Amino acid sequence: MELLEKRILKDGTFKDGGILKVDSFLNHQMDIELINELGKEFARRFAGKKITKILTVEASGIGIACIAAQYFHVPVIFAKKAQSKNLDGDIYTSSVMSFTHGQEYIIRVSKKFLESDDCVLIIDDFLANGKALIGLMDIIEQASANLVGCGICIEKGFQEGGAYIRSLGVDLQSLAIIDMDENGKMVFRKENE
Amino acid sequence: MELLEKRILKDGTFKDGGILKVDSFLNHQMDIELINELGKEFARRFAGKKITKILTVEASGIGIACIAAQYFHVPVIFAKKAQSKNLDGDIYTSSVMSFTHGQEYIIRVSKKFLESDDCVLIIDDFLANGKALIGLMDIIEQASANLVGCGICIEKGFQEGGAYIRSLGVDLQSLAIIDMDENGKMVFRKENE
Repeated sequence: MELLEKRILKDGTFKDGGILKVDSFLNHQMDIELINELGKEFARRFAGKKITKILTVEASGIGIACIAAQYFHVPVIFAKKAQSKNLDGDIYTSSVMSFTHGQEYIIRVSKKFLESDDCVLIIDDFLANGKALIGLMDIIEQASANLVGCGICIEKGFQEGGAYIRSLGVDLQSLAIIDMDENGKMVFRKENE
Repeated sequence: MELLEKRILKDGTFKDGGILKVDSFLNHQMDIELINELGKEFARRFAGKKITKILTVEASGIGIACIAAQYFHVPVIFAKKAQSKNLDGDIYTSSVMSFTHGQEYIIRVSKKFLESDDCVLIIDDFLANGKALIGLMDIIEQASANLVGCGICIEKGFQEGGAYIRSLGVDLQSLAIIDMDENGKMVFRKENE
């Protein structure tokens, strides 16, 4: 998606270790007008699919999922990372290894919000090693619900998550995919490449 | 706000220890159409005020802040709770004691996103003992930015946070305020009470 790619080039910064910082517009400070356009693009890419719930994981996926949900007219569920007094009763859990934080964590979704007839679209800001997506997909499977697809803002194509998830036959739509060329420079993958 | 009060009565559950669960529509599963109405109401209540940024704290404030920000046409900044590889450089920090989680945590905002000429509206889902709000206000003060006010979805009027923050002269707008009557039953405070 050209709008997002241009914004990454303008305001993103690349750091050693394959880290891309987009904290000025996506995941610390959020440019709501940009995110609105990303939401519209997810709606365009998943148009015609039956979707009853959007699932994301706290924290930085929540805003994007909520803005996008306005175009799907469905509720958002965000998987929780912290154990909380507010989260009790029957819950689905899955274990996720975080690349960004360098530690494992548990994600949790109350069973009452996912039914076997739900058609779930996962939305998140980043896809790198794919562990968060796999955890969310695991929860959808535990609920015997239907996974419609995954909408990702920025995929790091030079990490293994995207290829693995596509190999499962999942409809994974990433609005910008960043590859690394032979000189270690980050480049955008062309659509349909 | 009648729409929110009716929804709390319909779908909220009250538990011992003053805990109100609204996880079916506000802070685990999110009813985006309802939250859109809450966003509009915040816009109405802070109409005419100069606002340049909305500040919230992860996780459950983010979606509400993002939806509301569409009516203010300003970016959202969410304070982070977790130490992250993605958050480096100069940061403002403040320590917050959590009622819900029963532990202290640090909130962080990159200094580059808050300037002294910023006019900041804080938005969050809940106000109970007020510690999260006070932490966010502390960060705004550290940045020498201007606090415009606080927009809260649900205030627990029977806890001390709201009275304390109003005593500081802060324009605190809570869309539903829950008090406890002499029988320990939760009741809504009338507006302008």
